[in-house]
Amino acid sequence: MLRLSTHEGTRISLAENLNAHYGGGEANVAISLANYGHEVAFASKVPANGLGEAVKRHLGRFGVDTRQLLVGGPRLGTYYMEAGVGERAASVIYDRAGSSFATMTDLEWDLPSLFAGVDILHLSGITAALSKEWQRLLLDLMKAAKEAEVKVSFDVNYRGLLWTQAEAGAFLKKALPYVDYCSAGNMDALYLLKVPAYEGQGTPQDELIYYYQQMQELFPNIQLFYSTKRQVKSASDNILTGTLYVDGEYYESPSHHINPIVDRVGGGDAFSGGVLHGLLSQKAPQELIDFATAASALKHTVHGDCNQFSATEVERFISAGSGKIIR
Amino acid sequence: MLRLSTHEGTRISLAENLNAHYGGGEANVAISLANYGHEVAFASKVPANGLGEAVKRHLGRFGVDTRQLLVGGPRLGTYYMEAGVGERAASVIYDRAGSSFATMTDLEWDLPSLFAGVDILHLSGITAALSKEWQRLLLDLMKAAKEAEVKVSFDVNYRGLLWTQAEAGAFLKKALPYVDYCSAGNMDALYLLKVPAYEGQGTPQDELIYYYQQMQELFPNIQLFYSTKRQVKSASDNILTGTLYVDGEYYESPSHHINPIVDRVGGGDAFSGGVLHGLLSQKAPQELIDFATAASALKHTVHGDCNQFSATEVERFISAGSGKIIR
Amino acid sequence: MLRLSTHEGTRISLAENLNAHYGGGEANVAISLANYGHEVAFASKVPANGLGEAVKRHLGRFGVDTRQLLVGGPRLGTYYMEAGVGERAASVIYDRAGSSFATMTDLEWDLPSLFAGVDILHLSGITAALSKEWQRLLLDLMKAAKEAEVKVSFDVNYRGLLWTQAEAGAFLKKALPYVDYCSAGNMDALYLLKVPAYEGQGTPQDELIYYYQQMQELFPNIQLFYSTKRQVKSASDNILTGTLYVDGEYYESPSHHINPIVDRVGGGDAFSGGVLHGLLSQKAPQELIDFATAASALKHTVHGDCNQFSATEVERFISAGSGKIIR
Amino acid sequence: MLRLSTHEGTRISLAENLNAHYGGGEANVAISLANYGHEVAFASKVPANGLGEAVKRHLGRFGVDTRQLLVGGPRLGTYYMEAGVGERAASVIYDRAGSSFATMTDLEWDLPSLFAGVDILHLSGITAALSKEWQRLLLDLMKAAKEAEVKVSFDVNYRGLLWTQAEAGAFLKKALPYVDYCSAGNMDALYLLKVPAYEGQGTPQDELIYYYQQMQELFPNIQLFYSTKRQVKSASDNILTGTLYVDGEYYESPSHHINPIVDRVGGGDAFSGGVLHGLLSQKAPQELIDFATAASALKHTVHGDCNQFSATEVERFISAGSGKIIR
Amino acid sequence: MLRLSTHEGTRISLAENLNAHYGGGEANVAISLANYGHEVAFASKVPANGLGEAVKRHLGRFGVDTRQLLVGGPRLGTYYMEAGVGERAASVIYDRAGSSFATMTDLEWDLPSLFAGVDILHLSGITAALSKEWQRLLLDLMKAAKEAEVKVSFDVNYRGLLWTQAEAGAFLKKALPYVDYCSAGNMDALYLLKVPAYEGQGTPQDELIYYYQQMQELFPNIQLFYSTKRQVKSASDNILTGTLYVDGEYYESPSHHINPIVDRVGGGDAFSGGVLHGLLSQKAPQELIDFATAASALKHTVHGDCNQFSATEVERFISAGSGKIIR
Amino acid sequence: MLRLSTHEGTRISLAENLNAHYGGGEANVAISLANYGHEVAFASKVPANGLGEAVKRHLGRFGVDTRQLLVGGPRLGTYYMEAGVGERAASVIYDRAGSSFATMTDLEWDLPSLFAGVDILHLSGITAALSKEWQRLLLDLMKAAKEAEVKVSFDVNYRGLLWTQAEAGAFLKKALPYVDYCSAGNMDALYLLKVPAYEGQGTPQDELIYYYQQMQELFPNIQLFYSTKRQVKSASDNILTGTLYVDGEYYESPSHHINPIVDRVGGGDAFSGGVLHGLLSQKAPQELIDFATAASALKHTVHGDCNQFSATEVERFISAGSGKIIR
Repeated sequence: MLRLSTHEGTRISLAENLNAHYGGGEANVAISLANYGHEVAFASKVPANGLGEAVKRHLGRFGVDTRQLLVGGPRLGTYYMEAGVGERAASVIYDRAGSSFATMTDLEWDLPSLFAGVDILHLSGITAALSKEWQRLLLDLMKAAKEAEVKVSFDVNYRGLLWTQAEAGAFLKKALPYVDYCSAGNMDALYLLKVPAYEGQGTPQDELIYYYQQMQELFPNIQLFYSTKRQVKSASDNILTGTLYVDGEYYESPSHHINPIVDRVGGGDAFSGGVLHGLLSQKAPQELIDFATAASALKHTVHGDCNQFSATEVERFISAGSGKIIR
Repeated sequence: MLRLSTHEGTRISLAENLNAHYGGGEANVAISLANYGHEVAFASKVPANGLGEAVKRHLGRFGVDTRQLLVGGPRLGTYYMEAGVGERAASVIYDRAGSSFATMTDLEWDLPSLFAGVDILHLSGITAALSKEWQRLLLDLMKAAKEAEVKVSFDVNYRGLLWTQAEAGAFLKKALPYVDYCSAGNMDALYLLKVPAYEGQGTPQDELIYYYQQMQELFPNIQLFYSTKRQVKSASDNILTGTLYVDGEYYESPSHHINPIVDRVGGGDAFSGGVLHGLLSQKAPQELIDFATAASALKHTVHGDCNQFSATEVERFISAGSGKIIR
Repeated sequence: MLRLSTHEGTRISLAENLNAHYGGGEANVAISLANYGHEVAFASKVPANGLGEAVKRHLGRFGVDTRQLLVGGPRLGTYYMEAGVGERAASVIYDRAGSSFATMTDLEWDLPSLFAGVDILHLSGITAALSKEWQRLLLDLMKAAKEAEVKVSFDVNYRGLLWTQAEAGAFLKKALPYVDYCSAGNMDALYLLKVPAYEGQGTPQDELIYYYQQMQELFPNIQLFYSTKRQVKSASDNILTGTLYVDGEYYESPSHHINPIVDRVGGGDAFSGGVLHGLLSQKAPQELIDFATAASALKHTVHGDCNQFSATEVERFISAGSGKIIR
Repeated sequence: MLRLSTHEGTRISLAENLNAHYGGGEANVAISLANYGHEVAFASKVPANGLGEAVKRHLGRFGVDTRQLLVGGPRLGTYYMEAGVGERAASVIYDRAGSSFATMTDLEWDLPSLFAGVDILHLSGITAALSKEWQRLLLDLMKAAKEAEVKVSFDVNYRGLLWTQAEAGAFLKKALPYVDYCSAGNMDALYLLKVPAYEGQGTPQDELIYYYQQMQELFPNIQLFYSTKRQVKSASDNILTGTLYVDGEYYESPSHHINPIVDRVGGGDAFSGGVLHGLLSQKAPQELIDFATAASALKHTVHGDCNQFSATEVERFISAGSGKIIR
Repeated sequence: MLRLSTHEGTRISLAENLNAHYGGGEANVAISLANYGHEVAFASKVPANGLGEAVKRHLGRFGVDTRQLLVGGPRLGTYYMEAGVGERAASVIYDRAGSSFATMTDLEWDLPSLFAGVDILHLSGITAALSKEWQRLLLDLMKAAKEAEVKVSFDVNYRGLLWTQAEAGAFLKKALPYVDYCSAGNMDALYLLKVPAYEGQGTPQDELIYYYQQMQELFPNIQLFYSTKRQVKSASDNILTGTLYVDGEYYESPSHHINPIVDRVGGGDAFSGGVLHGLLSQKAPQELIDFATAASALKHTVHGDCNQFSATEVERFISAGSGKIIR
Repeated sequence: MLRLSTHEGTRISLAENLNAHYGGGEANVAISLANYGHEVAFASKVPANGLGEAVKRHLGRFGVDTRQLLVGGPRLGTYYMEAGVGERAASVIYDRAGSSFATMTDLEWDLPSLFAGVDILHLSGITAALSKEWQRLLLDLMKAAKEAEVKVSFDVNYRGLLWTQAEAGAFLKKALPYVDYCSAGNMDALYLLKVPAYEGQGTPQDELIYYYQQMQELFPNIQLFYSTKRQVKSASDNILTGTLYVDGEYYESPSHHINPIVDRVGGGDAFSGGVLHGLLSQKAPQELIDFATAASALKHTVHGDCNQFSATEVERFISAGSGKIIR
C-alpha cells in the first residue's frame, strides 16, 4: 500500500506536497524480520506500473525476497494521512477499493513453492476485511500452511471502518483454530470473540490476564498471545507497554514514554515483528516481550511504516538509558 | 482530479515525496476565465473528504464559484505523473476509475439554476470517454444549454488510452451539432471524423486549412474552430503556434519557443481559456489567437495545471520581448 | 498582512528561506466564519501587485468574499517572525509602516453596499493603533454599522509596541459604547479601562469575574465579553482555557494542553471566530465557549494564521479524546 | 537589501515559501573583491534588528569588513522577485521606500577614517536615485574621496522605475567629473548624457566605440569606461560580452553563452567587481575584460546576488572549455 | 562510495544541505543489469556502520545480491561534488583515501563461491588506481575468473587525478590479456597503450576505427571494444554517441542530444551496463550499441549514479520520439 | 569539522539528504565570544578546497578573524550524525582520521604574532586525543601562552571513543598546571584525575563541591572550575544546570527545562563561551554562571553547532519568562 501523508502541521486540503511511504501490516513485519537477519519473503500482488515497482524496491531495500510478489491487476491500494500532532489526532482517507490485491479471487501462487523451507506464515485480519473472497482465501492459506508444517501467525488488527464486529468475530471463529501465534487484546476478546466481560475488581493487568485466559480456553491450539497497552496522552505523546501470554503465564515489558512521536504508523507491526523474532531466536518470554516493545518504541521515532533497526540496535537501545549519546 | 507528480529527475518508483496539483480540463479553463475577470462557476462532483475540500479550495483561490460543485460519491480521480525532461517524456499512471464524477449516472444539478445567466458552457471530450452514461449526460447537458440559449464550447481532447477512435467518432457525430466553439485539429478531423485525407501538395498550413474547411462543412453550426501546432523538440523544449478558423478565414499566432518547459500539463486548457476570453471580450480573430497562444506559452512556465496570469499580464507578455526584465 | 517566518530552529539573521503566510486579525476571523459555513466578506486595502493578489487568493481559498477588498496604495504591511521553540519565545520584526491599509484616510467603501445584508461587523483594536485617522474611521464605521442595524464585534487586541495604554484607553472609551460583542480580559480592564484593581482574596476566576462585571457596568450595551487564559509553560507548550461573560453569568471551557505548538499566531482570532460562530448559530453559552476554545486549540496545531477546520471537525475534536485515530 | 524571491515556476501570489538573499550593487562588488583577495570594507546603514544582522553576517561570510556598517534607522530595504524562466521575464516588486539607508540625510561616517588606506571608492547611480539628499551626499563623498586621493569608481546603473532620464542626466553631469572608472554604455550616453545619436553605417561595435569616444570627450578625467552587451534570447538564455574603453582603445571579451541562467541578479556587479580587480592587480586591458566577463558569466550559474568565485577559479574557468569536468 | 553533492546553483562552500547518492562504477553496472532482469551480485567492502548499511540498502533496492559485500574496515570512500550548470563544469573533492575497500590487501572472498554460476566479471580501472595492492589483486581476480570460465569485462576508466598515464599503461599491458570485453577509446589507445598516433586525413570516425584496430591487434583476446563520443556543449548540454568495435566491424548509435543534463555521474556506467546486457541477451551489434547509448542518455535524465530503467523502458524510449507523452 | 546530519526521524542508512554544519569545540567557543562583541581569532588548519573554504566562511559569518586559519593538508575531519529524538539517542559515525588538523606535527603558526594582544587562549581535550603529537603541541602552546602572559582556558571534554581514561589522565596531569580556567566535572575528577571517591552522605551538590575542592587542591593554579549538570529525560528533553567553583565558593544557575531540543551539539561549547564572556566582562560569579547556562539553553533551540545569540539577547532571555512573545 502507498501512504500519502502530509507534513506535520499541514492540512490535506491545503497540502502542495505529500510524503510517499510504502507499507502494510504484513510487509512491515517482513521488513522487521529481514532487519533482524532472517530470510523473509513477501507474497502479495501489485500493479504492473511504477507504483508496483516502488513496492518491490521498498522491500528489496531492506532485503526482503520479492520473488513471490505478483504483478498485475488494476491498481495499488492507497490512503491519505493527515499527520496528527498534540491533541489533534491523525486522520485518514482510505482509497484502497479495487486494488490489485483486494480484487484477487484465487491464490495465484504455487503453494508448495510458496511454503518451501518456510517456518512461519504471518497474516493479518485486515486482509480478511477486504472481501468475502479473501476470507475464504485466508482460510485456504492457513490450511495449506498447516499441511506444509508451517506455523501460522495472525494479527487480529481489527479496523471498525472496514467491517463490523459481527463479521470479524465470525471469521475469527473459523480462522483461529489454525493459528499458532496470535496478536489479540482484551477488546478483541470482548467485542469480537464475545468472551464474557470481566467482572472482577482487579487491576487492569488482572483484567487483561483474564481475557488472555478466556481466549486461550477457546483456542487451546494458540501457543502465544500478545498485545500492547497504549496510553494516548496526545497524538505526540504515548506510553507503550507490551504484554505476552504464553504457557499460562503473563509477561509485561517496561513502559516506554514516546514523545514526540515521529510517525505512529506501523507501531503495532514493529511489535509483531519483534515477537516473531523472539520466537525464531528462541528468546525467553520476558526477553522476547522487552525486545518487541523496544522495537515498537523505536519505530515511533522514524518516518515510514516499517521498523528500520537491527537486532543489535534494538538491544543496545534497551541497555542504554533514554536519549544518551555515546561518543 | 488530483495529480501527484515527481520532482524533475526522480522516478516515481523511487520518489519519497510527490507534488499535489489539482486540475482537469474544464477546471483549468474555468480558472483561466476567472483570472481574466469573468464570472465563472464550475460544476463537477467530488467526495466528502479532504481531497474534495482541496478541489474546492483550489478553485476558490482563483475566484471560481464552487456552489455547483457537488459533494459525495466514492473517491477523487487521481493520476501519477513522472515528470519528463529532455529526451525523456513524462509518463502517466491513471488511477481515476470509480471516481465520484465518473460514477455519476444523472445530472444531479438543477439545470435552470445551473444555466441562469450563463453565456458559455464549456465541455471536454475526456468526460465522454469516462462512461456510456457520461456520453448520454453530455448530450443532455448540451441540449439543455441550447434551450437555455447558452453557447456550447467543446474541446475534443482525444485520449487514445481512454477510448477508441471509433467510439470517439460516433460520439462526436452526435455531439458536434450542438457545439458553437470547437477545439479540434487535423488529427481529429482525419481519424475521428473520418474526413478524406488531404491529398494536396501544399504547406502544412494548407493542409490544416483543408481539414478545418472539411469540419466546417460537416458542422456548419460551429462558429469557430481552434487548435495548436506543437513541435516537440524534447520534453523540455517545444515550439507552439496557435491556429484559428472562423468565418472561413484562417489565422495563426506567432510561434513561441518554450524552453525550458516548467510544467506541460494544462497547456491546451490555457489555450482554450484564452480563446473563450477572446470571444467574451470580442477580440478580433488575430488578436484572439495571439492572446490565447501567449496564455498557453505562459502556462508552460509555471507549476500546476492552470493558467495563473491575468489578461493584463498576458498582454504585457505579448508586447515585451522574450525574457526582458523591467526595473 | 504578510508574515515571513523562519523554520523552527533557524534564526532570522541566518535564514536562507522564509515561509510566507497571509493573515491579520480580521482576515483570520473572516476565514474561520467562512469555514463554518457563513457568508463572509472581508474589507481592507492591498496594493496592486502580486502580494495584494496573494491576499485575495488566500481569502478566496477559504471562500471569503473579496469584492470589498480595495486595491491600491503603496505597499502591503509585512512582519518577520523568528519562530519560538521551548524556552525561547518567538520574536517579531514589524515592517508595516506605510502600508496601503495604514495610510488610508477615508472610508473608501460605499457603506450602504458594504453593510447590505450583514449581521455582524468585526473590528480590531490593532487597526486603531495604526493611525489617528484610523481611530476616527473606526468610529465612523461603528456608527454607520449601528445605523444599518449591524451588530459590532470588537477585539481589543492591545499591542504595547504600537501605542500606549493611555492612547488605547482613550480610544476604547469612545468606541466601546458602539460595541455589542467584545473580546477583552482583566489586563484590558485594569490597564486600559482603568477599572479599580481587584482587592478580593478570591480565586483567579473570582478576579476575572470581577473585571468582567466592572467592564459590563461601564458598557451596559455590550452583550457578551470573552477572553482566554493562557498558561505559557514554554513557546512549545501552553494550557489554554476560554472564558465568557454573558447576561451576568460567567462560563469557562475545559482546558486544552497544547504541546507541541505548531504555530501560535492566530490563536486568539480562531477563538473570536468560534465565539462569533456560536452567536450566529445561537449556541448556548457553555457550548459556545467550549467550541471557541477547541477551535483555538486546533489552530495551534496547523501552520498559518487562520483556523482551517470546519464546524463539524471542531465538534468531532471536542467529542473525541486527545490524539486518538479512528480507523 | 533583502531580496525575497520565488522558486522557479512559482508565482509570487501563490508562493508559500521565499528565498532570502542579501545584496545590492555596492555590496556585491565588495564581495567580489574580497573573494579576489583584496581588503574591502562596506559602508551603508541597516536597522538594529535581525535583518540588519543578516546583512552583516552575509558580508562577513565573504570576508568583507563591516566596521563601517552603521546600525539604526527604520527598516531594511526589500524587494520581491518572481523568478523568470524561458520567455517569461522575472518581475520585481520594490519595497525599499523608507529604508534606513534611503532616509539618511548626513554622511554619518567619520570620513578620514572611512578613507584611510583606501584605494578605490565604488558608488552606484541607484543610490542617487533614492533621494535628493543622496544626490548631495554622493557628491560630498566623491569630493572627499578625491581630496583623500582615493580613486572614484561609479556604475551608472540607470533604473527607469526610480527616476527620469532628465533627473539622472542632471546628476551625472555633476558627478562624472569626479569619477575615475565608469560603467556606462551606449544607452547611458544617448539618453542620459544626450550625446548626439550615432549616424554612421558601422557595426554595433563601431556604434559602441563612438559612444565611448563621445563620453570620453565629455569627461576626459575618466580613465576607463566599461559595459556589457547582453543578447537576451530568453530569461533562461543570454549571450554576454564585455567591453572596455581605455586610453582611446576599445577591447571586447569573448562571448559567453549562458544557458540556463540560474540567477540573473548581480550579473552586472560581478562584471564591475572583475573590472576593479583587474585595475587593482594591474591586468592588461584584454586580460581585464576577459576576466570581468568570465566572472559575470560565472555569477549567472549560482543563486544569490554576489559572485562567489576566487580569482583562481575565474581564471581556471577561462582556460577550461565550457562544462568539462576534471577528475 | 558516497557522493555528497550540492543542489544546482549552490557552491559547496556555501551549501547547508547536500544530497547523498551511493554509487561507484561497478555498482552502477550491477544495478543496470539487475534492472534488465539479470541476476547480479556485487562484491566490495564497506564499513560496519550506517554508511555501509546504506550501500547495502541502495543495492538491494534495485535487486542486486549483496551477500558478497564484505563488512569491515575503517571507512566508506566519499567524494563531494559541486554540481555543474551551463558553462560551469562540475567540480569534485575526492575524500576516498583510507576506505575499507582501498585498504584491502587480500581477496577476502571465497573465490570458488564468488564465481559459482557467474557469466561475466566486471572490473574497472579506477580500482587499479587505488593502490599497488589492488593492481595485484585485480590481476589475481582476472586469472581466477578465467580459470572459472567466467568472462572478464573491463572498463579502463582512466582518471588523471588518481594515477599517471605511465602507471596506467603498465597496468593495462598486464591486465588486458585477460579481458574479453573492454571499454576503451582513442585517448586510452594513444596515451595509455601508446599506439602510434593516427596520421590519416579521415573523419573522426576513421580515426576512432584506426585506434580500435590498433588495440585489437595488441589484444586479440578482446572480443569487443566500446566507448562513447561526447560533445560537451556545456555542463547542461551534451551530444552523446555510442561506438562499438566487434569482429573487425565498427558500429555507431544515433546521437542523443541531452539537454538539460539532470545528473552527469554514471553516464558511462549506464553505457557499459547496456553493452553487457546486449551481450547477455545476444543482441546484434547495432541493436546492442543503440540500446546501450539510449540507456546512457536516459541515465542523464535522473538524479543518482545508476541507471533506473528497465529494458522495456529503454526500448520504448528508443522507439518513441524525443519527449512525446503517450496518454 | 564538518558535521553531516540527518533530518529528525530519518536514519542515516536511508537518508537522501544531509544537513551540513561546520563546528568543533574551539570554533564554537570562538563564535560565541564574537557574538558577544569580543575580538576573536581562530587558529586551526583546513584543506585547500571548498570544504576548507566553507569553514572560513562559517567563521567569518559570525565575525571571527580567520587570518590564523592555516590552509593545506589532506582533508577536513567529518562526522555523520543521526539525529536523536525521544528515547532514541543521536548516534555518531566519526570520520576524522587523517584530517589536515589531526596530521599536523608542528605548530605552524608564528607564535609571537599568534599571541599578540590576546587575553585568553582556549583549548580542548579533544585535540589532545587526536595524536601523541598534538599532546606535545598542546603543551608547547600552553607554555608559550603563559610566557606571553596569555591566560589559558581548557575544556577537558573527555570522549571515551577517542582515548582511554588512563591516557587522558596522564595528559591532564601534565597540562593542568598551565591552566587558568578549566571546564571539568565530577566524572573527570574521579575517573581521569583519580581523586578519591566521595564517600559522604550529602546531596549531589555536596558531592560536586567535594570534587571541585579536590581538583582545586591538586591544581591550585586554576582560578575557576565549571561544568554542567544535565538530566537526560530523553534525546528531546533535558534539564540543564550550570555550576561554578571559584575562590573556594560554589555557584549554581537556575535549571533550564529544554524541550524540545532542536540540536544538542555544541551545548557545552556555548556554556564555555558564556563563562569566558563572563570573565572577560568581569561579571560576578552568580551572574556569570546564570549567563553561561542561559546561553547554553538557547543554543539547544537552534540548528548548528554554535551559539547564535548576542549578549543582549541572552540577557533578555534571562529576564523574560519562558516562551512569552513581546509584541
